[in-house]
Amino acid sequence: MNHPENRSLSAIQGQVRVTIERVSPELDGGQFPIKAIPGDVIAVEADILADGHDYLSAKLLYKHIDDTNWSEMTMALLVNDRWGASFIVEKQGRYLYTIEAWVNHPASWQHEIHLKVADGQRITSELQAGAHYLDGMFLRAGVKLAATKGKGKKKKDTFEESPEVSALRDMAALFREGAALTDEALYNKAVATAESDQFTFYANRYPERQHSARYRHELAVEVDRARAGFSTWYCLFPRSASRQEGVHGTFKDVEALLPRISKMGFDVLYLPPIHPIGTAFRKGKNNSVVCQPGEPGVPYGIGSELGGHDAIHPELGTVDDFKHLIAIAGNYGMEIAMDLAIQCSPDHPWAKDHPEWFKKRPDGTIQYAENPPKKYQDIYPVYFETEDWQNLWEELKRVMLVWASWGVRIIRVDNPHTKPFVFWEWLIAQVKQEFPDMIFLAEAFTKPKVMQELAKRGFAHSYTYYTWRNSKYELEEYMTELTQTGGRPDAMAYYFRPNFWPTTHDINPYSLQGGHEPQFIIRFLLAATLSSNYGIYGPSFELMEHVPFPNKEDYLNSEKYEIRLWDWEKTNRLTYLIELVNRIRHENAALQTTNNITFCQVNDDAIMAYLKTSGSNRLLIIINTDAYNRRAGIVQVPIWQLGIGPDQSYTVHDLLTEAYYTWQGEQNYVELDPYVLPMHLFRIEL
Amino acid sequence: MNHPENRSLSAIQGQVRVTIERVSPELDGGQFPIKAIPGDVIAVEADILADGHDYLSAKLLYKHIDDTNWSEMTMALLVNDRWGASFIVEKQGRYLYTIEAWVNHPASWQHEIHLKVADGQRITSELQAGAHYLDGMFLRAGVKLAATKGKGKKKKDTFEESPEVSALRDMAALFREGAALTDEALYNKAVATAESDQFTFYANRYPERQHSARYRHELAVEVDRARAGFSTWYCLFPRSASRQEGVHGTFKDVEALLPRISKMGFDVLYLPPIHPIGTAFRKGKNNSVVCQPGEPGVPYGIGSELGGHDAIHPELGTVDDFKHLIAIAGNYGMEIAMDLAIQCSPDHPWAKDHPEWFKKRPDGTIQYAENPPKKYQDIYPVYFETEDWQNLWEELKRVMLVWASWGVRIIRVDNPHTKPFVFWEWLIAQVKQEFPDMIFLAEAFTKPKVMQELAKRGFAHSYTYYTWRNSKYELEEYMTELTQTGGRPDAMAYYFRPNFWPTTHDINPYSLQGGHEPQFIIRFLLAATLSSNYGIYGPSFELMEHVPFPNKEDYLNSEKYEIRLWDWEKTNRLTYLIELVNRIRHENAALQTTNNITFCQVNDDAIMAYLKTSGSNRLLIIINTDAYNRRAGIVQVPIWQLGIGPDQSYTVHDLLTEAYYTWQGEQNYVELDPYVLPMHLFRIEL
Repeated sequence: MNHPENRSLSAIQGQVRVTIERVSPELDGGQFPIKAIPGDVIAVEADILADGHDYLSAKLLYKHIDDTNWSEMTMALLVNDRWGASFIVEKQGRYLYTIEAWVNHPASWQHEIHLKVADGQRITSELQAGAHYLDGMFLRAGVKLAATKGKGKKKKDTFEESPEVSALRDMAALFREGAALTDEALYNKAVATAESDQFTFYANRYPERQHSARYRHELAVEVDRARAGFSTWYCLFPRSASRQEGVHGTFKDVEALLPRISKMGFDVLYLPPIHPIGTAFRKGKNNSVVCQPGEPGVPYGIGSELGGHDAIHPELGTVDDFKHLIAIAGNYGMEIAMDLAIQCSPDHPWAKDHPEWFKKRPDGTIQYAENPPKKYQDIYPVYFETEDWQNLWEELKRVMLVWASWGVRIIRVDNPHTKPFVFWEWLIAQVKQEFPDMIFLAEAFTKPKVMQELAKRGFAHSYTYYTWRNSKYELEEYMTELTQTGGRPDAMAYYFRPNFWPTTHDINPYSLQGGHEPQFIIRFLLAATLSSNYGIYGPSFELMEHVPFPNKEDYLNSEKYEIRLWDWEKTNRLTYLIELVNRIRHENAALQTTNNITFCQVNDDAIMAYLKTSGSNRLLIIINTDAYNRRAGIVQVPIWQLGIGPDQSYTVHDLLTEAYYTWQGEQNYVELDPYVLPMHLFRIEL
Repeated sequence: MNHPENRSLSAIQGQVRVTIERVSPELDGGQFPIKAIPGDVIAVEADILADGHDYLSAKLLYKHIDDTNWSEMTMALLVNDRWGASFIVEKQGRYLYTIEAWVNHPASWQHEIHLKVADGQRITSELQAGAHYLDGMFLRAGVKLAATKGKGKKKKDTFEESPEVSALRDMAALFREGAALTDEALYNKAVATAESDQFTFYANRYPERQHSARYRHELAVEVDRARAGFSTWYCLFPRSASRQEGVHGTFKDVEALLPRISKMGFDVLYLPPIHPIGTAFRKGKNNSVVCQPGEPGVPYGIGSELGGHDAIHPELGTVDDFKHLIAIAGNYGMEIAMDLAIQCSPDHPWAKDHPEWFKKRPDGTIQYAENPPKKYQDIYPVYFETEDWQNLWEELKRVMLVWASWGVRIIRVDNPHTKPFVFWEWLIAQVKQEFPDMIFLAEAFTKPKVMQELAKRGFAHSYTYYTWRNSKYELEEYMTELTQTGGRPDAMAYYFRPNFWPTTHDINPYSLQGGHEPQFIIRFLLAATLSSNYGIYGPSFELMEHVPFPNKEDYLNSEKYEIRLWDWEKTNRLTYLIELVNRIRHENAALQTTNNITFCQVNDDAIMAYLKTSGSNRLLIIINTDAYNRRAGIVQVPIWQLGIGPDQSYTVHDLLTEAYYTWQGEQNYVELDPYVLPMHLFRIEL
């Protein structure tokens, strides 16, 4: 396009009149796939236009990447040259889609004869033109049938007769006989046929696509397994799984906790790093620079003489113990997620075997991690700008395949935003090629576009700003940004799957540092009902651990730096609600997907209401985000969207309390006391 | 991207950490150029990001397509990973632009030593690392200088010393000496230098760009000559240029009208088709199917035995007469625009010589134009789907070159939306290759996206919906759509140059059919001040011709079908205002460009106010769009945008009446009577 004057006519398709633009969804000129799970409907739109006033036809072409042939869906004109169609991605893997469109001459012709016949004109010449169109349909129908039958061995000139093919030949003959005007009845029959839906049907079924336009990109959908769309995470430090003071927890101890975690309704158990921990510059309790003898170190200080990322910390157990844990978890319907932190203790084998994978200081020593003026002598960052990057990447891929060989299919990645985007794109694709079930979660709490970029490059899940979004205004704004497309072809809803966490083992947010029970409940209820994927850091969260490291959004006595003894038997209002809400999530499809949210007006600045629907499952969720005050207001229920008439009463069934209310009309009163229960989780039942 | 798993490492640039996305402006993935005129500033933005926390550098690269080397502008970080820079297109023709960005390691290093020094740390190892960066700058500086000197004959290893190069070597030496810690003063000097702006300067001037990222597209700007940005059109039918009843006007008659038209301030004189007119099925007065003997026919029924699109209607004069008209018009600073209507009378030479360029009916005859149920037997549409399209296109290009050889550099295209987009893209590029001054105006009154597409394909000007936008609300909404980008990379402001016409020889809008003088004045004033390109169909418009063909937005006794005798001497309020406003347009740069508009709040639903500024030329235009009632209201002047303090008084000088008012503050009262003058055309003078 930059030298259009140099385009010779032979390089131009001068008879292609249709143009296809502004296809949606499309990420960055088709560079990245959008995301889906099997069964999802992919709605595609495009501007499709041509010169003149002819009728156009457009097809949405799609296929699984393993398929040879494209499937097609007919696109419909929506408004103002915008066309749309959708297709269903039925299986896992990558789908491709694009668009083809052409001028539908027979349809234009039929429209014109309608007008002429209505005007009382004779249409003999037109019938002959119509017969010519039918000749083409006749030939294409026969050849198409033959091709369909002889799949893959289509020979040229193969032509098959069928009732449909014969019908097309007969119709063409009728048009010619009618045009001859020898018999008025025949003419009338021909005209009626020309105006019939049958003609339209054949024109659309066997179109002339010789000069069709094809969109310049093939766009992609990455279809992950169902759990990528709906999952409930529980994070714990296995070394704190022991029930005895001063005893290092093991995988066996974790197995003993599975009944509790499973009962609460979690299906992903995520463990921070489980590799040997380095001793050089090991950090002590509360991140102190000096480590006392016997302190266990930080699991993120990965690697010692016992091994690196492909080894297991012996105090937790053996590889076989870990595999056993995975198997037992599987019996509870739970998967184990591992933590990929690409960084090393100075004792990591890579530091000796591959010093070129680390940045050197001018004196030749390896550069430890810094965040000036702070120094982290216990950590060697991996140097991705190394000239030996190819071997580094291959080694990291090897580690992933080792983990996969243990049975791991979910990986939480620590700080992916400090490693190159292009590396993640490659690694995730490579691993998924061998293990298509693999799900990567990006633990990036950073600038919005960096978080978006990581999702585009292949992370199935992303941590979010939810942890810091507390007010109704903030939550509605953020949810809208995450879930609604607003007509944008690269909206986050297409590729960024949020995973909501009220806290993590790195984040003790200011909003929870007061240890206020209603606030914990609100933060949990929001996470579990706003996002189909969410998680908690346990048992810290359900036991309402909240004492901060002074002036930080971190925990005092964080188990990142020490082993904690938890009361693994304790239950409370929070554990009760977690169990209940997770069961409700499993029983209500509307909570199993995230983008199906519509906010409802409430005349109170703390009460938030949202409708979530999936087919006949329709939930109206109303929550008081003020953890200290009873609030009341009028919720405006979008009854028109629910197909409920203004005078029709309907039942809202609170799944949390089993209370039933009969409502009517748009405006309904609610009152929510955070000290009682801050939420109505209504199912609408007519 | 569709098969990422198959990408081998050798196909990946694994050390490139920066990504560049969402470049703006960019039309449809870079398929089409944006538009400008010489001197325009092209502001470019992009998302530029990398992993981690390093400093980035980005350059906007640009060049005229004839240049060998790229020029560069440093991009600045605006907000949230959005970067921006701009460049000026100085000359006509096509410019290219793209973006390059890289990780600026020395800048990150400098930031880190700032923090360490502030923390009281010794930075000896860091100084040695800094010396290493300086070694690289030293080498690049020397080689760059040598390359600059030996332009085009750069030899490898050529290196030139200069004061700057020496300074870099000295600075590296200082860093190393300082790091040795043998002399505290030297250390301190090295640290101060490391923290200095001088170091920053060199780091930015001689960067290491080995692993820089380059945006995947080179985008284009089509720079037209100045008149594409600012022009004032007058349309007349030359056959009505005679001053004698019943006499066919000639080019000579048109020459006699030039003083009047020039005095009114027009610089483009556009003539409907001037070719021989066919006689077969010729239409009569008021488009009647039967033509009376002696009727002149429709200029759009092009072609007879006297010739086609490359011939001149003999009754108007000869080719030499036409060239003479062009020359004389040039003396008045006026250009002649021709009308390209790609359609033929049945008598057109192409119908005989190239029957394959027309669609055949089944009986072998050429298909005349239809808009069912209406038939236009006097017109043969050209059939662009012909198998012989290449010869058709070449012939149309030949016609354009013939017109150009006569001296024509502006072409108004009749109904371009009924000919393929790809044809226009090719034709316009081909013609501009030989005649870069050529300006094409698209006369397409059709669906918005079709109008946009024609502009994208190369039309420098486009007719608009202005003709039907009357209310304040409609006008503000439409102007916003045309002129504001709203952050969209494919906003119309980038490529669609509106040309506003209150009426045309095809459109007598309902709003003017009442013949109400204030309405004519308002429609003129709006066109001339909202759009830097506008035109009138004269003398019909200035003489307030308004009687409609019944129930149509067309004229009774339209001169499309007959010769009209006009009073070419007549002047009135409208001619006075046209002359005045066109002079004001020439004297005020703010009226010479269209996108520089900001609407101001007025508490009246008919009074519209808009600020237009160009450097120190600042106009505040206030118009009452109600042609029947005096209106008054408070205009909110954006004094903050004008740099005027809230207590500061300022003068608004009405260029229409030479009245001066002293205003102060944001809120100012206006009162406009359409029967007196519906507009204040204020220049703000401090």
